[in-house]
Amino acid sequence: VSVDKGVDFANYFCTYGFLYHQKEMLSDRIRMDAYYNAIFQNKHHFTGKAVLDVGTGSGILAIWSAQAGARKVYAVEATKMADHAKALVQANNVEDIVEVIEGSMEEVDLPEKVDVIISEWMGYFLLRESMFDSVICARDRWLKSSGVMYPSHARMWVAPVRSGLGDQKMNDFESAMRDWYSFVNETETNYGVNMNVLTKAYHEEHEKYYLKTSLWSNLHPNQIVGTPAVIKEIDCLSATVDEIRSVASKFSLPITIDRTRISAFAGWFDVHFRGSMQEPAKTVVELSTEPDEDNPTHWGQQVFLVHHPLRVNRGDEVIVSFSMSRSKENHRLMDVDCAYELHLSSGKRLEPVAMKFFIE
Amino acid sequence: VSVDKGVDFANYFCTYGFLYHQKEMLSDRIRMDAYYNAIFQNKHHFTGKAVLDVGTGSGILAIWSAQAGARKVYAVEATKMADHAKALVQANNVEDIVEVIEGSMEEVDLPEKVDVIISEWMGYFLLRESMFDSVICARDRWLKSSGVMYPSHARMWVAPVRSGLGDQKMNDFESAMRDWYSFVNETETNYGVNMNVLTKAYHEEHEKYYLKTSLWSNLHPNQIVGTPAVIKEIDCLSATVDEIRSVASKFSLPITIDRTRISAFAGWFDVHFRGSMQEPAKTVVELSTEPDEDNPTHWGQQVFLVHHPLRVNRGDEVIVSFSMSRSKENHRLMDVDCAYELHLSSGKRLEPVAMKFFIE
Ligand SMILES: Nc1ncnc2c1ncn2[C@@H]1O[C@H](CSCC[C@H](N)C(=O)O)[C@@H](O)[C@H]1O
Ligand SMILES: Nc1ncnc2c1ncn2[C@@H]1O[C@H](CSCC[C@H](N)C(=O)O)[C@@H](O)[C@H]1O
Repeated sequence: VSVDKGVDFANYFCTYGFLYHQKEMLSDRIRMDAYYNAIFQNKHHFTGKAVLDVGTGSGILAIWSAQAGARKVYAVEATKMADHAKALVQANNVEDIVEVIEGSMEEVDLPEKVDVIISEWMGYFLLRESMFDSVICARDRWLKSSGVMYPSHARMWVAPVRSGLGDQKMNDFESAMRDWYSFVNETETNYGVNMNVLTKAYHEEHEKYYLKTSLWSNLHPNQIVGTPAVIKEIDCLSATVDEIRSVASKFSLPITIDRTRISAFAGWFDVHFRGSMQEPAKTVVELSTEPDEDNPTHWGQQVFLVHHPLRVNRGDEVIVSFSMSRSKENHRLMDVDCAYELHLSSGKRLEPVAMKFFIE
Repeated sequence: VSVDKGVDFANYFCTYGFLYHQKEMLSDRIRMDAYYNAIFQNKHHFTGKAVLDVGTGSGILAIWSAQAGARKVYAVEATKMADHAKALVQANNVEDIVEVIEGSMEEVDLPEKVDVIISEWMGYFLLRESMFDSVICARDRWLKSSGVMYPSHARMWVAPVRSGLGDQKMNDFESAMRDWYSFVNETETNYGVNMNVLTKAYHEEHEKYYLKTSLWSNLHPNQIVGTPAVIKEIDCLSATVDEIRSVASKFSLPITIDRTRISAFAGWFDVHFRGSMQEPAKTVVELSTEPDEDNPTHWGQQVFLVHHPLRVNRGDEVIVSFSMSRSKENHRLMDVDCAYELHLSSGKRLEPVAMKFFIE
């Protein structure tokens, strides 16, 4: 797959060039605490070691690595944010240890292999942005065979949820369509052109936008109506791009709440900092983005709306076939195929439903 | 100037691929009426003629041209909207006349020269999007020497206005900065990293965003506090890219209202459909985007905020040096340098003020 660098910059990297966006991540306490604790409660991984920070952004993880005792930190950043990282490194007196390198990870050369690769590469629902590709590339080129990945493991989760978002989006969609119909009438009346032939395309465009594009949301835990399932596990030390390019999983979601409805599936992720087999963490740290009213993250959860909601009861089960792959137009976005079938506790099975979603 | 086509698509054309966006333009009654009347009240320009529609979008102007009697219409569109234009042409029974060509105007070949070039190329404050370049290119290659441009003339206007937007944006900016300062404190306290070295850059980034980026607004006519000035006139038949690449004008704005203040300059445009010297319009049509409460357009006006507002009275005068050029990073966006000096009716002159703005 060949990606035009300029286009990738226009579509993707550009946002990371703003301090505004970096600050949003730096203000996410759950994210910050996880990385901070992972580093400072496992100083033995850093003391005297060479570290590579893939996508250093403001430089925060590189600076922490230095403060935790690293001998040398290579901090690679593709955008002009690298200049700010340099300033921050200097202001925090670690310029003898942290070397900020402006460039894309795929093209940068380092003078040595490293003991640790640290990176905050996770996008919405883990894989949006496809940045883990760059971490894999860095790992295969620059990590010693004894090296450790920070984080070391990642998982994707899906759960059945209830939510008012579906009704709201359906209303928005229907009102957009009503508006379209009166537009078609007016254009015919006022300007003698019949636009009705575009109705189908307009419907599709808006259905995609309002109903099929996953929504960012910080759900309340009580919106979860069944047992979440792990749909993908990644070992960051061994994963290949082929393994993450698509995700396909068939799983069952047992309903745990009575007289409720499934109006959406929610997707989130967690990552763990466990070190490696040879170099285990002293303290294992987890960073979870599951619904948690007291600990929301900037990732929230991705919500895939189910039109029409399913009435369910405790003991029912939803069997889901979930498959996610990269969008053809933009490898950093995802297309999702989701088929689900409700198995009632009575033994009755409802008609399977298949839906397409887009993670934009 | 070389422009990466892929990047230009990612940054610019992509939005025009959505019916949503085309519909917004097709719902602008002022815009639609102007083109409709220009065409149907000047059928003599179209009957039996060859017409080129530069950037046909949904195909509306091409279809009207056909309905007005054109022998042949070439309708060129860079985006996939071309497919919808084709469908619309067919549904409106003008497929024998209108030929939709998907491609960028700069690269398309036509079998003949045309009598009329019609195009709706105007961006915010006329020149944003730099699409008139493509019209000039089309004209120089494909318009007969006796040909007519639709529209034929364009003007840019600037006026002194009062507005509450400035206070609002200043509040937003100040609250963003307060937020930043507490972020800096918290990051130091919780995570041992001092971010203060980035304060200046954060300030600049946000000052640009909140205070220096022109705002879209539909102003009320009573917000205009002085006589508007024409700062640029374009004859679409003769203008060159060099003539529109930058706009520089020094002009005076006489204040017409007592005890008011200038809190912004507003920029807008109008275009005229006058035909040409040899082929004058029977009915001259004007499309104006000036503040008009009953006739708002989707272009609105661009508002350039003046911090700190100037107290003014009838009889005072503001002398403005206005210069606009294309942004280095994106030739479709604009940088503005605006210097102004208040001459009071008493004869006193206030210190000149110079500001930079961005049309994003
Ligand atoms: N291939 C690549 N090469 C270099 N930098 C990359 C990259 N892919 C993504 N990035 C950068 O990686 C950063 C991810 S966001 C994380 C920033 C920082 N490490 C923090 O934790 O706060 C962005 O700044 C982005 O520009
Ligand atoms: N160089 C170029 N070649 C082809 N199409 C272009 C172009 N520059 C801009 N466009 C197209 O021009 C259109 C401008 S919007 C106007 C659309 C239509 N003529 C109407 O009046 O409703 C967009 O659809 C855009 O994609």
